[in-house]
Formats: sequence, C-alpha cells, structure tokens
Amino acid sequence: MRFSVTYLVRADAASIEARAKGIAVEQSVEMPLDAIDDETVLADIVGQVEDIEDLHDGRFAVRIALASRTVGQDSGQLLNMLFGNTSLHEDVVLHDVDIPFDLHALFGGPRHGVSELRRRLHLHERAFAGSALKPQGLAPDELGLLAEQFARGGLDFIKDDHGLADQHYSPFADRIRACAAGIARGVRATGHPTRYIPSLTGNLDQLRAQAALARDEGIDCIMVAPMIAGFPAVQALVHAFPDLAVFAHPSLGGLRVSPELLIGKLFPLIGADAVIFPTYGGRFGYSQAQCRRLAENARAAADGGRGALPVPAGGMTLARTAEILDFYGPDTMLLIGGNLLQAREHIASEAERFVRAVADHRYA
Amino acid sequence: MRFSVTYLVRADAASIEARAKGIAVEQSVEMPLDAIDDETVLADIVGQVEDIEDLHDGRFAVRIALASRTVGQDSGQLLNMLFGNTSLHEDVVLHDVDIPFDLHALFGGPRHGVSELRRRLHLHERAFAGSALKPQGLAPDELGLLAEQFARGGLDFIKDDHGLADQHYSPFADRIRACAAGIARGVRATGHPTRYIPSLTGNLDQLRAQAALARDEGIDCIMVAPMIAGFPAVQALVHAFPDLAVFAHPSLGGLRVSPELLIGKLFPLIGADAVIFPTYGGRFGYSQAQCRRLAENARAAADGGRGALPVPAGGMTLARTAEILDFYGPDTMLLIGGNLLQAREHIASEAERFVRAVADHRYA
Repeated sequence: MRFSVTYLVRADAASIEARAKGIAVEQSVEMPLDAIDDETVLADIVGQVEDIEDLHDGRFAVRIALASRTVGQDSGQLLNMLFGNTSLHEDVVLHDVDIPFDLHALFGGPRHGVSELRRRLHLHERAFAGSALKPQGLAPDELGLLAEQFARGGLDFIKDDHGLADQHYSPFADRIRACAAGIARGVRATGHPTRYIPSLTGNLDQLRAQAALARDEGIDCIMVAPMIAGFPAVQALVHAFPDLAVFAHPSLGGLRVSPELLIGKLFPLIGADAVIFPTYGGRFGYSQAQCRRLAENARAAADGGRGALPVPAGGMTLARTAEILDFYGPDTMLLIGGNLLQAREHIASEAERFVRAVADHRYA
Repeated sequence: MRFSVTYLVRADAASIEARAKGIAVEQSVEMPLDAIDDETVLADIVGQVEDIEDLHDGRFAVRIALASRTVGQDSGQLLNMLFGNTSLHEDVVLHDVDIPFDLHALFGGPRHGVSELRRRLHLHERAFAGSALKPQGLAPDELGLLAEQFARGGLDFIKDDHGLADQHYSPFADRIRACAAGIARGVRATGHPTRYIPSLTGNLDQLRAQAALARDEGIDCIMVAPMIAGFPAVQALVHAFPDLAVFAHPSLGGLRVSPELLIGKLFPLIGADAVIFPTYGGRFGYSQAQCRRLAENARAAADGGRGALPVPAGGMTLARTAEILDFYGPDTMLLIGGNLLQAREHIASEAERFVRAVADHRYA
C-alpha cells in the first residue's frame, strides 16, 4: 500500500527528474539503488516518482508514492518518512499528502471536532468567539481575574497564551485552578457554558499529569503545540485522554511544510479537534488562498461534522469580525487576544461586543 | 536573568526597528505593551532589543534579550520562547543563542561527549569511522549480517539508518538483538570494541522501553531525532538513561534555524554527545563556514573534553576521507553509508580500507 506525497521543488527542467528520483530515494531507503539486492525492498519500499508538473514559476510539483509500511504505528515516523532529511534542502517544500485510509484509521483523526464543540457550547449555527490569557509573567490570581472578565463577556473559549507553561511565577496547577475558578464565576453570571483551554507543555509524563489535573478540575479542552511537544507525544496524549478536545497551536511550525498541510491536515490526523493558525491580513504572512485551503482541509479531516475547527488568529481585531466571518464561514472560531486586552477595565464589555458581533453577523 | 538571542531579519532600514521590537514582543508577552499594567512584567518579562546590525545584504542581525524565567524547566518551552510564533515568519531566521550558565546547568549538556567516546573505543588520537545499516525493508537477520560485515571491517560505530523504526518487517527488539549479535561476532574477530547505535523512535514511553531494551543487550549508545521525538522527550530520555551516549539525528531539522545553532548548540544543550549533520560538499547545501561553526559549537558545548562529537555525513565517500579529516580535525566521526554499501560482498574489506584511511591520515 502506497500513498502520494507532493513536494514543490525549485529546480531547472534539466535537473528536475534527477531531483525527483533523489527525493524518492532520500525519503525511503536513503542509499544508492545499485547497492540494493533485495527485490522486495526495490519493489515495495523504495519511493516511486508518480508525476512531475512544471509550475512555470521556477518550481515543479513532484508527486512521490511512499510505502505505508515504512510508517509503522508512529506519527513521528510518519514525519520522518514524509520530510526527514529532505527538510534540510532549502529548495524543497513538503506541500501535500493524500492521507490513505489505513493511516487515518491508525492515527484516528479528530475525536470530537466541530460537532462536539457545538454540542458542548450549545451553539448550533454561529461561529465561536474566543480569547487568550496573557501576558505571561502574571500570577495565577491575576490570570484568573482576567479569565473571569472574559467569561463575564460571554466568550465561548478562553485559552492560555501559548507562552504560559509551568513557570515559577505561574505554576501550571495554580494557574489552571485560578483560571477555571474565574471562568466558573463568569459562567454563573451569564449562564453560557464558556470553556477554558489550558496550554499543556513538557514531556509526555508532564503532559499526561497536566491533562489529568485539568480533567479533575472539570476542564474538557486542552491546547498543545505538536511541533514542540513532538507528534508522538500528542498521539499518545490523545489516546490517553479521549474525552478531552484538543486545540493544536502552530508554535515552531515554520518548517518548509505548507501550512495547509501541516496545520490543516497533519495536526487533525493525530487528533486535533481545532487548529489555531495565523490568518491572512494579521501579523503573519499566510495568503488568503493558503488560509482557505487550510480551513477546508481541517474541516475535511473527518466525516459527519467531526472535522477539525479552524481557529484563525494572530493579530485579529474586533473591527475585522465581519470580514473574517464572511471569509471563513460559521464553522470557525475567531480568536482575538491583544485587541480585547487593550480595553483594560472594559474587557468584559468589549468581549460582549465581540460575541454579539459574531452572533449577529449575517453572511454576505 | 536574561540571555541574548540573535535573529537574521530580511527588512529595509525604515522598518527594521519596528520589526525588532515586534519580535521582542512576539517571543515574550505576545500582546500590545500599552495593554500591560504590571510593572514587573514590563521590566522583567518583555523581550528587549539589544542591538540591530545592518548586514548590508538586505538582512539585519537583531539581538534580543529574553528572560530565562519564561523558560521554566522545559526544553520545549525554550524552543517556544526562542522561536515559537516567529518561526512562522518566512523572513526571519533564528541564528544564535548565547546560552547562559543557568540554562546550561538546567539542561545539563552532553553527559559524555568526545572524551568518553574515546575512552569506550580505546582511541585517543584519531578520528572515528562509522557507517549506517540500511536499507529499511530488510529483515532483522539481514541487517545483523550487514552489521557483522561492518564490524569485521573494524569500524568504530555502526548506527541504524534513521528510517529504521519499529516497523512490521523489522520490529525494534528483533532488529537490535540481531544487529548487536552480528556486531559481537565481528568484535570477537577483530578485538576492536565496535559500538552499535540503534535508532530510537516513538513517544517517551516507547523511547524509554527501547532504551532499556538496548541497555539490557549491553548497548551503550543510542540515536534519536530531537525534532521528531520533541525536545522534551529527549531531555527526559537523557535524564532517565545517564549512561547511554546520545547521537542526535537532524531529521526534520529544516526549520528557519541556523544549523550551527540547532544542531551545533541546542541538540548538545539537551544532552547530545554526538551530532550528525549533512556536511558541505555532499547531497545537502550547508556551506563550509556553517559546517565549521557547527562543529566548533558542538565541541564547545561542555568543558574538559565533554563537548559533543561532530559527525559529518550525508553523501560522504571514501575518496573524500582526507579532505574531510583535514577540514574537521581528529575530534570528529566520519560517517559513510551508501558509498560503503556499494561494495556489496566486499563491504568488510571496504570498511577496513576506510578505517585505515582514517587511522593513517596525517593532518595537513
């Protein structure tokens, strides 16, 4: 069984065939084929060039069929086979993967996805509105008070900033207890089931301990950065805590891998129920076309509404709510961080204004 | 306590100051400073621009002081603070870090390094010679016979190809027993204490189980790919198995991070005793200057000979032995994979020729 992987390669027409064969070898047996006797290895393991398309911009789209058997059961080994050594070539981008059914079944995809997040929030049509707790450096109680303000404004999701880890000034356990308590106070005032998404960090032992602590506090969503924790750790964490909805953060995602693949397909493949990414028009450089494909890929990660929720972020402002909703549609969570925090003592009312703008939006 | 981080930023002179401040904020509090009241956060947590140097090639070297306190105890969080969101900017490269004593003490650096590898191999002057077991797809017994041939040739280190994981056609436990046994037969013939370096993969539970199995087989070296396993997993593995010498593989290392930093400094920081990297002049594009700095950084990762061993690889050939030795000097391991395998039934004698070329080399 093989699956197709597409690389974008900067090369000239005279060399592209050799480059394509080189990638097929590098991402499978990584040795000269003339030194391989074993017929099974040559027939079933060595990567095969399926197609080379001239993109007429100095690049070629090279499609290579890799053997599923080389992946074993490990999502880390999947990355290793997709792009391990070839990631070191500056002129190659890992662009797309046709994830075959056997790999999807192996890794499981989103366990909850859009439909379960809708069920938990009692929201059946509109987009979700969320914000982030920051800056790091604040003590747990201060973050808890901020979380309460956000919750009093009726936000759907309140997540930790991805910089919040397990630091001396804000230990994980103290922080999540303070933030969960703050949000609970807000929920009692509004009646809206606002969810807290703590950021989990560290090695697998620490991730599991933090997830257990979160679950014991009644929290049912977590955030993790797969490129920092490592795909194998996220895979194991999702397996160990099937009830937690997983938000994937793109931190350290700046590999030469197309974001619509890395964030839109691979994060959901290993279990992300929602994917946070820097939207076009903010502080980062993703194009509209990339963002559209990323969101489509995420939602298509599983059937029956279980696809992953796209979460555009990264410099979003209240003023852009209508534009962003029209672009991404209702199966989306808008994440506005800094722009809400600038309201300072009026954070709750500014959050309320944000939620109302999302709820009242009529799609163009 | 702060430490300096250098980024290379493509920008024009008019915008570089704002870009530098933007990175300092992104890699610390990630929110508008005018929305922060807390004096301690503003003074002690927010990143500070220390210097901006015009490199006169369209890029600027931006030096930013980050707070050690934001790192906590976790090497994943170190990467998050160094480059988390900024990695998503295509025009920024993470170039260098002045690792302060407190972070070095926290993560421990190489536990063994060059001097201990020399002690284990009974080699006190010359460079090391190694090769790799491949292709993947071979059964354990076939890999074991290949390992025996390499060992009979007197190689110092025989490592798994980084594609060998825990696949159906070659389960980890069967493979390492077969390879360790093959090498033991070679060692009995030569008397030279050739070491086997199995490649460990998967999540932290799996990494620990594989390391324990290796140790029980009398193996005292392992290989792991930090960008795939995740820095937190490597940090935990090194801590759990202090007697194993750790070879770091660069797979998936194609972030916009200078290799002399990522491979030369950060891999050793979390415990790599040897770092494998694609040398100049092979299949990959690192320059001579990058390779020289990478090797220097690795060796400087700890005092008293405990620095990490540079392992240039990636398309090395026997014909280049003298050139590569002259370039890197004796505290180096040469790794020739495919080129040795092309000798087929003469692998043992070709390996012997390689070892002799290394041993007989007179430095220019």
